[in-house]
Amino acid sequence: MVMDGTNSDVLTLARWYKGRALALDEILVGGVKTYSLQSGITDSAAAGTAMATGHKTSVDMIGLVPKLKNNKIQSVQPAVSILEAAKLKGLLTGIVSTSPIQHATPAAFTSHTLSRNGYDDIAEQQVYQGLDIVLGGGKVSLLPKKNDNILHTPSGVGSNMPFNRKDGENLLDEIKRSGYAFVETNSELEKVNKGKVWGSFADVDIAYELDRPSLAPNQPSLAYMTKKALNLLHNQQKGFFLFVEGSKIDWAAHKNDPVGMISEVLSFDAAVEEALHFAQQNPNTLLIAVADHGNSGLTMGNQNTNKSYSKTPINQFIDPLKKAKLTATGAASLLKKDRSNIDEVTSYYGLSPLSVQDMKRIETTDNVELELAKQMAKRANLGFTTLGHSGEDVFLYAYGPGKPTGLINNTDFPSYITKFLGISSLNHFNQTLFMDAKVYYEKKGYKVKVDLTDRHNPLFIAEKKGQKIIYPANKNYKLVNGKRNDLIGVNVYVNQQFWITEK
Amino acid sequence: MVMDGTNSDVLTLARWYKGRALALDEILVGGVKTYSLQSGITDSAAAGTAMATGHKTSVDMIGLVPKLKNNKIQSVQPAVSILEAAKLKGLLTGIVSTSPIQHATPAAFTSHTLSRNGYDDIAEQQVYQGLDIVLGGGKVSLLPKKNDNILHTPSGVGSNMPFNRKDGENLLDEIKRSGYAFVETNSELEKVNKGKVWGSFADVDIAYELDRPSLAPNQPSLAYMTKKALNLLHNQQKGFFLFVEGSKIDWAAHKNDPVGMISEVLSFDAAVEEALHFAQQNPNTLLIAVADHGNSGLTMGNQNTNKSYSKTPINQFIDPLKKAKLTATGAASLLKKDRSNIDEVTSYYGLSPLSVQDMKRIETTDNVELELAKQMAKRANLGFTTLGHSGEDVFLYAYGPGKPTGLINNTDFPSYITKFLGISSLNHFNQTLFMDAKVYYEKKGYKVKVDLTDRHNPLFIAEKKGQKIIYPANKNYKLVNGKRNDLIGVNVYVNQQFWITEK
Repeated sequence: MVMDGTNSDVLTLARWYKGRALALDEILVGGVKTYSLQSGITDSAAAGTAMATGHKTSVDMIGLVPKLKNNKIQSVQPAVSILEAAKLKGLLTGIVSTSPIQHATPAAFTSHTLSRNGYDDIAEQQVYQGLDIVLGGGKVSLLPKKNDNILHTPSGVGSNMPFNRKDGENLLDEIKRSGYAFVETNSELEKVNKGKVWGSFADVDIAYELDRPSLAPNQPSLAYMTKKALNLLHNQQKGFFLFVEGSKIDWAAHKNDPVGMISEVLSFDAAVEEALHFAQQNPNTLLIAVADHGNSGLTMGNQNTNKSYSKTPINQFIDPLKKAKLTATGAASLLKKDRSNIDEVTSYYGLSPLSVQDMKRIETTDNVELELAKQMAKRANLGFTTLGHSGEDVFLYAYGPGKPTGLINNTDFPSYITKFLGISSLNHFNQTLFMDAKVYYEKKGYKVKVDLTDRHNPLFIAEKKGQKIIYPANKNYKLVNGKRNDLIGVNVYVNQQFWITEK
Repeated sequence: MVMDGTNSDVLTLARWYKGRALALDEILVGGVKTYSLQSGITDSAAAGTAMATGHKTSVDMIGLVPKLKNNKIQSVQPAVSILEAAKLKGLLTGIVSTSPIQHATPAAFTSHTLSRNGYDDIAEQQVYQGLDIVLGGGKVSLLPKKNDNILHTPSGVGSNMPFNRKDGENLLDEIKRSGYAFVETNSELEKVNKGKVWGSFADVDIAYELDRPSLAPNQPSLAYMTKKALNLLHNQQKGFFLFVEGSKIDWAAHKNDPVGMISEVLSFDAAVEEALHFAQQNPNTLLIAVADHGNSGLTMGNQNTNKSYSKTPINQFIDPLKKAKLTATGAASLLKKDRSNIDEVTSYYGLSPLSVQDMKRIETTDNVELELAKQMAKRANLGFTTLGHSGEDVFLYAYGPGKPTGLINNTDFPSYITKFLGISSLNHFNQTLFMDAKVYYEKKGYKVKVDLTDRHNPLFIAEKKGQKIIYPANKNYKLVNGKRNDLIGVNVYVNQQFWITEK
């Protein structure tokens, strides 16, 4: 379970806001180093890849590891994720997130692309990965531009984006062909009680938990998705690996919105509570919860409290935050173009009454969300250092047999999990899942080529004596003289190179 | 072992600066909640009192706990510290700090005063506490105004303060009477190889570790003081309780000087390394290391890195810091009154070459230290939120039998230590050490009064049938018809009230 972009301080603040212990508080066991291969501060792609594959990697890379020379990238290679290894071991697998499921962290457990922005490729690999449970946002990456047979569902706070797969494929066809129940709302999800399920609850992201009841009531909570996923996976008694992300703590942190950050910490914590309850009921469960990196440098205490910090009752932090009924993003989403309802918007965010000066600032700013958040931070005596990530060690939470403790690196997670699952090591699976297709087939005497005729659908083609074998990128099959042969992993295309599995 | 005012982020930064693991990294076990009784952010007095006595208290209070009514303080009462309890149990005791030993955190383990600023009272109680080892700064609080028989030793970076006990007492007399070796330099300390030692190495604080070799070479390092204290205490084979503080991480943090903060984290970490080595050699040792609270909100990442954070190699944080050969305080201490050597000063702090604009800022600022630090932070991509403390949970480090783990409150420490030492509880000792003198003697039929004739030396006087018993504040004896009877604890005077022990 990953809370994206969460520094220690917001956990303390969220506890005060909640008024009692977090579920996480019960299972604090250490800390985690988060830096990436080439940066003191990681992005979510490199952090996700580290946690999923055990390898530090460079910014933006999803499930790929570069070879460096003089700190320059020479080549890249896919690295098996712990989810893929669990699947090969015969376990069920699932991913749950409040972001698009193609977002960096869930992507790193389920796909292999040079750029975290390659949503089309990521979505396609996920669909062909043979996952059992997929619950989250990201519907726009499943469908080509024209499609009227599917709900447009609000993303976060409402704006609809066009469905936009550039390859023109409708991944829903494959999702349905693979036997998933495809659901688009909370109530549809409730009705699923067995088998594979693909829940796509938002065009892009699921609404902030604080905003969800009023702005996107058909979307499920992270806690409910987690509980449902655990039940569905558990029922089949095969064992499972489940990835869950509280994705949008990070998104709110990038806006320095403490209300959004707290909303999402508590949403994540409620999911942890479900998982912890499950683990307590099912003792052969290893639960790990961790932030992938810090973000925003939020502190209780700021320039207001330079002198007064030690005489600042807790309500001077919490009361202003509690006045907000929506996040900064949620409130700003309701702002009319002519800003005529600015009173209403600031009131939803808990800033009423406003001084003339502060109102003026909101009326005239280019970025309403940031200005709202800034005024809230000032009132709540909260400081921020950056709109980006931060580089500090984060807290580590874990429960169950074989749990990590102490200070570890983010690349250490897979070894704890493989050990728990009785898998030798991830590297062991690399040769199985990711052979260099060119090397493999040339050795066998095939003539090989990469066909980029359709640049959105690269193909690897090997030919010998009338036999033609085609590997389409991102899919889990090969075509042998036109006949589909399913494979145990997806075909990965990176920088003119195909990586394939024999099996 | 307490690192004063240390947030998580500076530990990560100090590890990068050091280039390898911290000693602390080996023993990370959880986290600690730090808030005080009436504030979301604690000061060191309330935090020290919580850790020493197990009671949350109000800002500024040292070893005292208030009774509140409607959040207003009605009365206060002393609370036994874990150090006092260990002493009553027959263990040896010691305190080591780089601050004046009268500073809030060591004070909270060894004294009881309404205000952390009551250095005269704190110093006197410490001298009469029967400690075995005292190593640190704070000489000015031991001596009355006129005294030529003692070294003036540089405080931190040089300025001598007048010796200033307002009660005119020379505590050195009592220190020597009690059998301490009194030492004032590193080399004098080296020569001590048994018995009680009182090391007073600076008029106020010991220099920052980075500055010490050039600016105060006669002062010992925290690591050496710790090692010496452990050896001296261990040799007597009675068991011991030792308090060690890296005091000035906090001081540098209040100036937002990352160089000073790193200097002191590494100084503290070297002391932890000594202690950990000792604990590994002597398995019946419980070692705890912790920050009492965050300070400054330092982050790796700031407004410079809003967009570039994930592409910022570690040398872009560390290289600017490494250029500094002195802390901001150390460098600024060398600035001539006419600021004619500003080039030299900025160069010591690693800021050369400087743009004309940046030089101008330093030339014209009211606060050279802050301006130097600000420019360094910018170069090193570091953010700060405040010049004060911050409210987040801090990391917990521990090693040995009975160590705390997980998320605990700062008030939980004494219970782990009492359990380890086989002491029932601290509250048990409260009635022994701190009886209300008025209640106690009136019950016995004495006429009692508090004599404030000499306002710097309050006396409690009880009289009956020609017997006159006098308890002088802050001392560990009573005078029975003029004859000194030693007691097992010090007499505490707070708000017209005396707290005394019978024994």
